[in-house]
Amino acid sequence: MDKATNNDVLSALDKVLQERKNAAADSSYVASLYEKGLNRILEKVGEEASEVIIAAKDCEGEKGQDALLGEVADLWFHSMVLLAQQGLSSAQVLAILEERFGLSGHIEKAARS
Amino acid sequence: MDKATNNDVLSALDKVLQERKNAAADSSYVASLYEKGLNRILEKVGEEASEVIIAAKDCEGEKGQDALLGEVADLWFHSMVLLAQQGLSSAQVLAILEERFGLSGHIEKAARS
Amino acid sequence: MDKATNNDVLSALDKVLQERKNAAADSSYVASLYEKGLNRILEKVGEEASEVIIAAKDCEGEKGQDALLGEVADLWFHSMVLLAQQGLSSAQVLAILEERFGLSGHIEKAARS
Amino acid sequence: MDKATNNDVLSALDKVLQERKNAAADSSYVASLYEKGLNRILEKVGEEASEVIIAAKDCEGEKGQDALLGEVADLWFHSMVLLAQQGLSSAQVLAILEERFGLSGHIEKAARS
Repeated sequence: MDKATNNDVLSALDKVLQERKNAAADSSYVASLYEKGLNRILEKVGEEASEVIIAAKDCEGEKGQDALLGEVADLWFHSMVLLAQQGLSSAQVLAILEERFGLSGHIEKAARS
Repeated sequence: MDKATNNDVLSALDKVLQERKNAAADSSYVASLYEKGLNRILEKVGEEASEVIIAAKDCEGEKGQDALLGEVADLWFHSMVLLAQQGLSSAQVLAILEERFGLSGHIEKAARS
Repeated sequence: MDKATNNDVLSALDKVLQERKNAAADSSYVASLYEKGLNRILEKVGEEASEVIIAAKDCEGEKGQDALLGEVADLWFHSMVLLAQQGLSSAQVLAILEERFGLSGHIEKAARS
Repeated sequence: MDKATNNDVLSALDKVLQERKNAAADSSYVASLYEKGLNRILEKVGEEASEVIIAAKDCEGEKGQDALLGEVADLWFHSMVLLAQQGLSSAQVLAILEERFGLSGHIEKAARS
Protein backbone atom coordinates (compact mmCIF):
# COMPACT_ATOMS: atom_id res chain seq x y z
CA MET A 1 0.00 0.00 0.00
CA ASP A 2 1.57 3.32 -1.00
CA LYS A 3 1.27 6.37 1.20
CA ALA A 4 -1.39 8.18 -0.83
CA THR A 5 -3.62 5.10 -0.71
CA ASN A 6 -2.99 4.54 2.97
CA ASN A 7 -4.00 8.09 3.78
CA ASP A 8 -7.50 7.90 2.40
CA VAL A 9 -8.63 4.64 3.90
CA LEU A 10 -10.57 6.08 6.84
CA SER A 11 -12.44 8.66 4.77
CA ALA A 12 -13.28 6.01 2.14
CA LEU A 13 -14.58 3.76 4.92
CA ASP A 14 -16.60 6.65 6.38
CA LYS A 15 -18.26 7.01 2.98
CA VAL A 16 -19.08 3.30 2.74
CA LEU A 17 -20.51 3.29 6.28
CA GLN A 18 -22.61 6.36 5.46
CA GLU A 19 -24.01 4.76 2.26
CA ARG A 20 -25.01 1.57 4.07
CA LYS A 21 -27.27 3.54 6.42
CA ASN A 22 -29.84 3.46 3.64
CA ALA A 23 -29.36 -0.22 2.75
CA ALA A 24 -31.66 -3.11 3.71
CA ALA A 25 -30.75 -4.77 7.02
CA ASP A 26 -30.06 -8.11 5.36
CA SER A 27 -27.85 -6.62 2.64
CA SER A 28 -24.64 -6.40 4.67
CA TYR A 29 -23.13 -6.87 8.14
CA VAL A 30 -23.00 -3.09 8.63
CA ALA A 31 -26.64 -2.63 7.65
CA SER A 32 -27.61 -5.38 10.11
CA LEU A 33 -25.67 -3.59 12.88
CA TYR A 34 -27.54 -0.32 12.20
CA GLU A 35 -30.82 -2.28 12.28
CA LYS A 36 -29.97 -3.86 15.64
CA GLY A 37 -29.19 -0.39 16.93
CA LEU A 38 -26.86 1.44 19.29
CA ASN A 39 -26.66 -1.20 22.05
CA ARG A 40 -25.57 -3.95 19.64
CA ILE A 41 -22.90 -1.65 18.15
CA LEU A 42 -21.63 -0.82 21.66
CA GLU A 43 -21.54 -4.52 22.62
CA LYS A 44 -19.32 -5.07 19.56
CA VAL A 45 -16.99 -2.20 20.59
CA GLY A 46 -16.67 -3.80 24.05
CA GLU A 47 -16.11 -7.29 22.61
CA GLU A 48 -13.45 -6.10 20.18
CA ALA A 49 -11.59 -4.20 22.94
CA SER A 50 -11.42 -7.44 24.98
CA GLU A 51 -10.17 -9.30 21.91
CA VAL A 52 -7.44 -6.67 21.38
CA ILE A 53 -6.31 -7.20 24.99
CA ILE A 54 -6.26 -11.00 24.62
CA ALA A 55 -4.47 -10.86 21.23
CA ALA A 56 -1.85 -8.47 22.66
CA LYS A 57 -1.13 -10.88 25.54
CA ASP A 58 -0.70 -13.67 22.93
CA CYS A 59 1.32 -11.50 20.54
CA GLU A 60 4.32 -13.63 19.65
CA GLY A 61 5.83 -14.05 16.18
CA GLU A 62 4.37 -12.91 12.87
CA LYS A 63 1.15 -14.89 13.36
CA GLY A 64 0.57 -13.23 16.74
CA GLN A 65 1.22 -9.78 15.27
CA ASP A 66 -1.20 -10.42 12.38
CA ALA A 67 -3.86 -11.49 14.88
CA LEU A 68 -3.35 -8.32 16.94
CA LEU A 69 -3.51 -6.10 13.84
CA GLY A 70 -6.76 -7.84 12.83
CA GLU A 71 -8.31 -7.21 16.25
CA VAL A 72 -7.29 -3.52 16.24
CA ALA A 73 -8.84 -3.28 12.75
CA ASP A 74 -12.06 -4.79 14.16
CA LEU A 75 -12.04 -2.32 17.06
CA TRP A 76 -11.49 0.72 14.84
CA PHE A 77 -14.08 -0.54 12.33
CA HIS A 78 -16.79 -0.94 14.98
CA SER A 79 -15.91 2.49 16.45
CA MET A 80 -16.44 3.91 12.97
CA VAL A 81 -19.83 2.17 12.66
CA LEU A 82 -20.69 3.85 15.99
CA LEU A 83 -19.55 7.25 14.68
CA ALA A 84 -21.57 6.81 11.46
CA GLN A 85 -24.64 5.70 13.41
CA GLN A 86 -24.37 8.91 15.47
CA GLY A 87 -23.88 11.11 12.38
CA LEU A 88 -20.19 11.64 13.16
CA SER A 89 -17.04 10.79 11.18
CA SER A 90 -13.45 9.63 11.56
CA ALA A 91 -12.27 13.05 10.32
CA GLN A 92 -13.62 14.58 13.54
CA VAL A 93 -11.66 12.08 15.64
CA LEU A 94 -8.49 12.72 13.63
CA ALA A 95 -8.93 16.48 14.10
CA ILE A 96 -8.91 15.95 17.88
CA LEU A 97 -5.77 13.79 17.72
CA GLU A 98 -4.07 16.33 15.44
CA GLU A 99 -4.75 19.20 17.80
CA ARG A 100 -3.99 17.24 20.95
CA PHE A 101 -0.58 16.11 19.74
CA GLY A 102 0.33 19.26 17.79
CA LEU A 103 0.72 17.16 14.67
CA SER A 104 0.27 19.89 12.04
CA GLY A 105 4.02 20.68 12.04
CA HIS A 106 4.87 17.01 11.58
CA ILE A 107 2.39 16.67 8.72
CA GLU A 108 3.71 19.75 6.86
CA LYS A 109 7.28 18.48 7.19
CA ALA A 110 6.24 15.10 5.77
CA ALA A 111 4.39 16.77 2.88
CA ARG A 112 7.51 18.77 1.92
CA SER A 113 9.82 15.76 2.00
CA MET B 1 -9.19 20.63 8.79
CA ASP B 2 -8.64 20.23 5.07
CA LYS B 3 -8.47 16.80 3.47
CA ALA B 4 -4.70 16.73 2.91
CA THR B 5 -4.09 17.47 6.59
CA ASN B 6 -6.72 15.01 7.75
CA ASN B 7 -5.15 12.22 5.75
CA ASP B 8 -1.75 12.31 7.37
CA VAL B 9 -2.75 12.49 11.01
CA LEU B 10 -2.34 8.80 11.84
CA SER B 11 1.05 8.44 10.18
CA ALA B 12 2.28 11.64 11.89
CA LEU B 13 1.06 10.24 15.21
CA ASP B 14 2.80 6.92 14.49
CA LYS B 15 6.03 8.87 14.05
CA VAL B 16 5.60 10.77 17.33
CA LEU B 17 4.82 7.53 19.20
CA GLN B 18 7.90 5.88 17.66
CA GLU B 19 10.17 8.78 18.66
CA ARG B 20 8.96 8.73 22.27
CA LYS B 21 10.11 5.11 22.68
CA ASN B 22 13.59 6.53 23.24
CA ALA B 23 12.49 9.32 25.61
CA ALA B 24 12.85 9.35 29.41
CA ALA B 25 9.81 7.91 31.25
CA ASP B 26 9.10 11.21 33.00
CA SER B 27 9.31 13.28 29.80
CA SER B 28 5.78 12.60 28.54
CA TYR B 29 2.58 10.62 29.15
CA VAL B 30 3.42 8.27 26.26
CA ALA B 31 6.95 7.62 27.55
CA SER B 32 5.50 6.83 31.00
CA LEU B 33 3.08 4.33 29.41
CA TYR B 34 5.94 2.53 27.64
CA GLU B 35 7.84 2.45 30.95
CA LYS B 36 4.84 0.92 32.78
CA GLY B 37 4.67 -1.68 30.01
CA LEU B 38 2.15 -3.76 28.08
CA ASN B 39 -0.34 -4.47 30.89
CA ARG B 40 -0.76 -0.78 31.72
CA ILE B 41 -1.31 0.05 28.03
CA LEU B 42 -3.92 -2.73 27.78
CA GLU B 43 -5.69 -1.51 30.94
CA LYS B 44 -5.95 1.90 29.23
CA VAL B 45 -7.40 0.32 26.04
CA GLY B 46 -10.02 -1.43 28.19
CA GLU B 47 -10.82 1.73 30.18
CA GLU B 48 -11.21 3.84 27.08
CA ALA B 49 -13.52 1.27 25.44
CA SER B 50 -15.79 1.45 28.51
CA GLU B 51 -15.71 5.25 28.36
CA VAL B 52 -16.71 5.14 24.66
CA ILE B 53 -19.71 2.96 25.59
CA ILE B 54 -20.77 5.27 28.43
CA ALA B 55 -20.30 8.43 26.32
CA ALA B 56 -22.33 6.88 23.48
CA LYS B 57 -25.22 6.15 25.87
CA ASP B 58 -25.05 9.80 27.03
CA CYS B 59 -24.64 11.18 23.51
CA GLU B 60 -27.19 13.98 23.29
CA GLY B 61 -26.62 17.39 21.72
CA GLU B 62 -23.34 18.93 20.58
CA LYS B 63 -21.73 18.58 24.02
CA GLY B 64 -22.56 14.85 24.08
CA GLN B 65 -21.18 14.39 20.57
CA ASP B 66 -17.95 16.21 21.48
CA ALA B 67 -17.55 13.95 24.52
CA LEU B 68 -18.05 10.82 22.39
CA LEU B 69 -15.54 12.03 19.78
CA GLY B 70 -13.02 12.70 22.56
CA GLU B 71 -13.46 9.18 23.97
CA VAL B 72 -13.06 7.57 20.52
CA ALA B 73 -9.88 9.68 20.07
CA ASP B 74 -8.63 8.33 23.44
CA LEU B 75 -9.40 4.75 22.38
CA TRP B 76 -7.65 5.07 19.02
CA PHE B 77 -4.71 6.85 20.62
CA HIS B 78 -4.14 4.13 23.21
CA SER B 79 -4.51 1.43 20.49
CA MET B 80 -1.77 3.25 18.58
CA VAL B 81 0.48 3.32 21.67
CA LEU B 82 -0.08 -0.45 21.85
CA LEU B 83 0.82 -0.86 18.16
CA ALA B 84 3.99 1.24 18.58
CA GLN B 85 4.99 -0.69 21.72
CA GLN B 86 4.68 -3.92 19.70
CA GLY B 87 6.68 -2.50 16.76
CA LEU B 88 3.54 -2.20 14.60
CA SER B 89 1.89 0.83 12.95
CA SER B 90 -1.49 2.29 12.06
CA ALA B 91 -0.64 1.83 8.35
CA GLN B 92 -0.84 -1.95 8.87
CA VAL B 93 -4.29 -1.63 10.44
CA LEU B 94 -5.48 0.62 7.60
CA ALA B 95 -4.18 -1.89 5.03
CA ILE B 96 -6.40 -4.56 6.62
CA LEU B 97 -9.46 -2.27 6.58
CA GLU B 98 -8.75 -1.30 2.97
CA GLU B 99 -8.55 -4.90 1.81
CA ARG B 100 -11.46 -6.09 3.93
CA PHE B 101 -13.84 -3.45 2.61
CA GLY B 102 -12.47 -3.30 -0.95
CA LEU B 103 -11.80 0.41 -0.48
CA SER B 104 -9.15 0.86 -3.18
CA GLY B 105 -11.80 1.63 -5.82
CA HIS B 106 -13.40 4.24 -3.53
CA ILE B 107 -10.03 5.84 -2.84
CA GLU B 108 -9.08 6.09 -6.52
CA LYS B 109 -12.44 7.66 -7.35
CA ALA B 110 -11.94 10.25 -4.58
CA ALA B 111 -8.39 11.00 -5.81
CA ARG B 112 -9.68 11.66 -9.35
CA SER B 113 -12.45 13.98 -8.24
CA MET C 1 -35.49 -17.36 48.39
CA ASP C 2 -34.82 -17.67 52.10
CA LYS C 3 -31.48 -16.68 53.61
CA ALA C 4 -30.11 -20.20 54.10
CA THR C 5 -30.77 -21.02 50.45
CA ASN C 6 -29.37 -17.71 49.26
CA ASN C 7 -26.15 -18.33 51.12
CA ASP C 8 -25.20 -21.53 49.42
CA VAL C 9 -25.78 -20.58 45.81
CA LEU C 10 -22.18 -19.75 44.91
CA SER C 11 -20.71 -22.90 46.48
CA ALA C 12 -23.40 -25.05 44.79
CA LEU C 13 -22.54 -23.38 41.48
CA ASP C 14 -18.82 -23.97 42.09
CA LYS C 15 -19.61 -27.66 42.49
CA VAL C 16 -21.63 -27.79 39.25
CA LEU C 17 -18.85 -25.99 37.35
CA GLN C 18 -16.27 -28.40 38.77
CA GLU C 19 -18.33 -31.46 37.76
CA ARG C 20 -18.75 -30.21 34.19
CA LYS C 21 -14.96 -30.13 33.70
CA ASN C 22 -15.20 -33.88 33.07
CA ALA C 23 -18.26 -33.68 30.80
CA ALA C 24 -18.27 -33.96 26.99
CA ALA C 25 -17.92 -30.60 25.20
CA ASP C 26 -21.33 -30.94 23.54
CA SER C 27 -23.15 -31.86 26.76
CA SER C 28 -23.59 -28.32 28.09
CA TYR C 29 -22.74 -24.65 27.51
CA VAL C 30 -20.19 -24.76 30.35
CA ALA C 31 -18.48 -27.87 28.95
CA SER C 32 -18.28 -26.18 25.53
CA LEU C 33 -16.65 -23.11 27.13
CA TYR C 34 -13.99 -25.29 28.80
CA GLU C 35 -13.38 -26.99 25.44
CA LYS C 36 -12.94 -23.64 23.65
CA GLY C 37 -10.47 -22.68 26.35
CA LEU C 38 -9.26 -19.67 28.32
CA ASN C 39 -9.44 -17.03 25.57
CA ARG C 40 -13.11 -17.79 24.82
CA ILE C 41 -13.97 -17.61 28.54
CA LEU C 42 -12.16 -14.25 28.82
CA GLU C 43 -13.97 -12.91 25.74
CA LYS C 44 -17.24 -13.78 27.50
CA VAL C 45 -16.13 -11.97 30.70
CA GLY C 46 -15.35 -8.89 28.57
CA GLU C 47 -18.65 -9.11 26.66
CA GLU C 48 -20.70 -9.47 29.83
CA ALA C 49 -18.97 -6.50 31.49
CA SER C 50 -19.93 -4.34 28.47
CA GLU C 51 -23.50 -5.63 28.70
CA VAL C 52 -23.63 -4.72 32.42
CA ILE C 53 -22.54 -1.17 31.53
CA ILE C 54 -25.14 -0.85 28.76
CA ALA C 55 -27.93 -2.34 30.92
CA ALA C 56 -27.04 0.02 33.79
CA LYS C 57 -27.33 3.03 31.45
CA ASP C 58 -30.77 1.72 30.37
CA CYS C 59 -31.86 0.83 33.90
CA GLU C 60 -35.32 2.34 34.25
CA GLY C 61 -38.33 0.69 35.86
CA GLU C 62 -38.70 -2.93 36.92
CA LYS C 63 -37.93 -4.26 33.44
CA GLY C 64 -34.69 -2.30 33.33
CA GLN C 65 -33.71 -3.53 36.79
CA ASP C 66 -34.42 -7.15 35.84
CA ALA C 67 -32.25 -6.74 32.74
CA LEU C 68 -29.38 -5.31 34.82
CA LEU C 69 -29.66 -8.13 37.39
CA GLY C 70 -29.56 -10.68 34.54
CA GLU C 71 -26.39 -9.11 33.09
CA VAL C 72 -24.65 -9.03 36.50
CA ALA C 73 -25.62 -12.72 36.91
CA ASP C 74 -24.03 -13.43 33.47
CA LEU C 75 -20.87 -11.56 34.48
CA TRP C 76 -20.52 -13.40 37.80
CA PHE C 77 -21.32 -16.73 36.17
CA HIS C 78 -18.62 -16.33 33.52
CA SER C 79 -16.11 -15.18 36.18
CA MET C 80 -16.91 -18.41 38.05
CA VAL C 81 -16.33 -20.49 34.90
CA LEU C 82 -12.95 -18.74 34.67
CA LEU C 83 -12.17 -19.53 38.32
CA ALA C 84 -13.16 -23.19 37.86
CA GLN C 85 -11.09 -23.46 34.66
CA GLN C 86 -8.07 -22.19 36.64
CA GLY C 87 -8.71 -24.58 39.56
CA LEU C 88 -9.95 -21.75 41.81
CA SER C 89 -13.30 -21.18 43.55
CA SER C 90 -15.75 -18.46 44.56
CA ALA C 91 -14.93 -19.21 48.22
CA GLN C 92 -11.44 -17.80 47.64
CA VAL C 93 -12.89 -14.59 46.18
CA LEU C 94 -15.33 -14.24 49.08
CA ALA C 95 -12.45 -14.74 51.58
CA ILE C 96 -10.67 -11.74 50.00
CA LEU C 97 -13.83 -9.58 50.17
CA GLU C 98 -14.43 -10.63 53.78
CA GLU C 99 -10.93 -9.70 54.87
CA ARG C 100 -10.77 -6.51 52.81
CA PHE C 101 -14.01 -5.14 54.25
CA GLY C 102 -13.64 -6.52 57.79
CA LEU C 103 -16.93 -8.35 57.36
CA SER C 104 -16.44 -11.05 60.00
CA GLY C 105 -17.95 -8.82 62.72
CA HIS C 106 -21.00 -8.09 60.54
CA ILE C 107 -21.46 -11.79 59.77
CA GLU C 108 -21.30 -12.85 63.44
CA LYS C 109 -23.84 -10.18 64.40
CA ALA C 110 -26.20 -11.41 61.68
CA ALA C 111 -25.76 -15.05 62.79
CA ARG C 112 -26.69 -14.14 66.41
CA SER C 113 -29.80 -12.20 65.42
CA MET D 1 -12.71 -19.57 56.24
CA ASP D 2 -15.36 -22.03 57.37
CA LYS D 3 -18.51 -22.61 55.37
CA ALA D 4 -20.89 -20.68 57.61
CA THR D 5 -18.70 -17.59 57.40
CA ASN D 6 -18.15 -17.96 53.67
CA ASN D 7 -21.86 -18.12 53.03
CA ASP D 8 -22.74 -14.77 54.50
CA VAL D 9 -20.03 -12.62 52.94
CA LEU D 10 -22.10 -11.19 50.09
CA SER D 11 -25.09 -10.28 52.26
CA ALA D 12 -22.79 -8.70 54.87
CA LEU D 13 -21.13 -6.70 52.07
CA ASP D 14 -24.56 -5.67 50.72
CA LYS D 15 -25.35 -4.27 54.19
CA VAL D 16 -22.08 -2.32 54.38
CA LEU D 17 -22.63 -0.89 50.87
CA GLN D 18 -26.18 0.10 51.82
CA GLU D 19 -25.03 1.86 55.02
CA ARG D 20 -22.39 3.87 53.18
CA LYS D 21 -25.03 5.43 50.93
CA ASN D 22 -25.71 7.84 53.79
CA ALA D 23 -22.05 8.54 54.58
CA ALA D 24 -20.08 11.67 53.64
CA ALA D 25 -18.28 11.39 50.26
CA ASP D 26 -14.86 11.78 51.87
CA SER D 27 -15.50 9.15 54.55
CA SER D 28 -14.72 6.09 52.44
CA TYR D 29 -13.88 4.87 48.92
CA VAL D 30 -17.44 3.54 48.48
CA ALA D 31 -19.02 6.83 49.58
CA SER D 32 -16.78 8.68 47.10
CA LEU D 33 -17.93 6.33 44.29
CA TYR D 34 -21.60 7.05 45.08
CA GLU D 35 -20.80 10.76 45.07
CA LYS D 36 -19.11 10.54 41.65
CA GLY D 37 -22.18 8.72 40.40
CA LEU D 38 -23.23 5.96 37.99
CA ASN D 39 -20.74 6.68 35.17
CA ARG D 40 -17.73 6.48 37.50
CA ILE D 41 -19.01 3.19 38.97
CA LEU D 42 -19.47 1.79 35.45
CA GLU D 43 -15.97 2.91 34.41
CA LYS D 44 -14.66 0.93 37.40
CA VAL D 45 -16.65 -2.19 36.37
CA GLY D 46 -15.13 -1.91 32.87
CA GLU D 47 -11.61 -1.36 34.22
CA GLU D 48 -11.82 -4.30 36.59
CA ALA D 49 -13.09 -6.62 33.83
CA SER D 50 -10.03 -5.70 31.72
CA GLU D 51 -7.80 -6.34 34.74
CA VAL D 52 -9.39 -9.78 35.23
CA ILE D 53 -8.62 -10.62 31.58
CA ILE D 54 -5.00 -9.45 31.88
CA ALA D 55 -4.46 -11.26 35.22
CA ALA D 56 -5.93 -14.47 33.76
CA LYS D 57 -3.49 -14.32 30.84
CA ASP D 58 -0.64 -13.88 33.37
CA CYS D 59 -1.99 -16.54 35.76
CA GLU D 60 1.01 -18.73 36.53
CA GLY D 61 1.96 -20.10 39.95
CA GLU D 62 0.50 -19.15 43.34
CA LYS D 63 1.35 -15.46 42.90
CA GLY D 64 -0.49 -15.36 39.55
CA GLN D 65 -3.53 -17.11 41.06
CA ASP D 66 -3.62 -14.67 44.00
CA ALA D 67 -3.51 -11.76 41.56
CA LEU D 68 -6.40 -13.22 39.53
CA LEU D 69 -8.48 -13.83 42.68
CA GLY D 70 -7.84 -10.22 43.74
CA GLU D 71 -9.02 -8.90 40.37
CA VAL D 72 -12.19 -11.04 40.42
CA ALA D 73 -12.83 -9.72 43.96
CA ASP D 74 -12.45 -6.15 42.61
CA LEU D 75 -14.86 -6.91 39.75
CA TRP D 76 -17.52 -8.44 42.02
CA PHE D 77 -17.09 -5.65 44.57
CA HIS D 78 -17.63 -2.89 41.99
CA SER D 79 -20.65 -4.79 40.56
CA MET D 80 -22.08 -4.81 44.08
CA VAL D 81 -21.50 -1.06 44.44
CA LEU D 82 -23.46 -0.71 41.18
CA LEU D 83 -26.28 -2.90 42.51
CA ALA D 84 -26.44 -0.91 45.78
CA GLN D 85 -26.41 2.39 43.88
CA GLN D 86 -29.43 1.15 41.87
CA GLY D 87 -31.27 -0.07 44.99
CA LEU D 88 -30.59 -3.73 44.12
CA SER D 89 -28.74 -6.49 46.01
CA SER D 90 -26.51 -9.50 45.50
CA ALA D 91 -29.35 -11.74 46.77
CA GLN D 92 -31.31 -10.89 43.61
CA VAL D 93 -28.36 -11.90 41.42
CA LEU D 94 -27.90 -15.15 43.35
CA ALA D 95 -31.62 -15.93 42.97
CA ILE D 96 -31.20 -15.70 39.16
CA LEU D 97 -28.15 -17.98 39.21
CA GLU D 98 -29.95 -20.45 41.48
CA GLU D 99 -32.96 -20.68 39.19
CA ARG D 100 -30.92 -20.70 35.98
CA PHE D 101 -28.75 -23.61 37.08
CA GLY D 102 -31.37 -25.50 39.06
CA LEU D 103 -29.19 -25.26 42.14
CA SER D 104 -31.86 -25.75 44.81
CA GLY D 105 -31.44 -29.55 44.72
CA HIS D 106 -27.67 -29.19 45.12
CA ILE D 107 -28.10 -26.80 48.02
CA GLU D 108 -30.56 -29.05 49.91
CA LYS D 109 -28.25 -32.01 49.51
CA ALA D 110 -25.34 -29.96 50.90
CA ALA D 111 -27.49 -28.79 53.85
CA ARG D 112 -28.40 -32.38 54.74
CA SER D 113 -24.81 -33.66 54.64
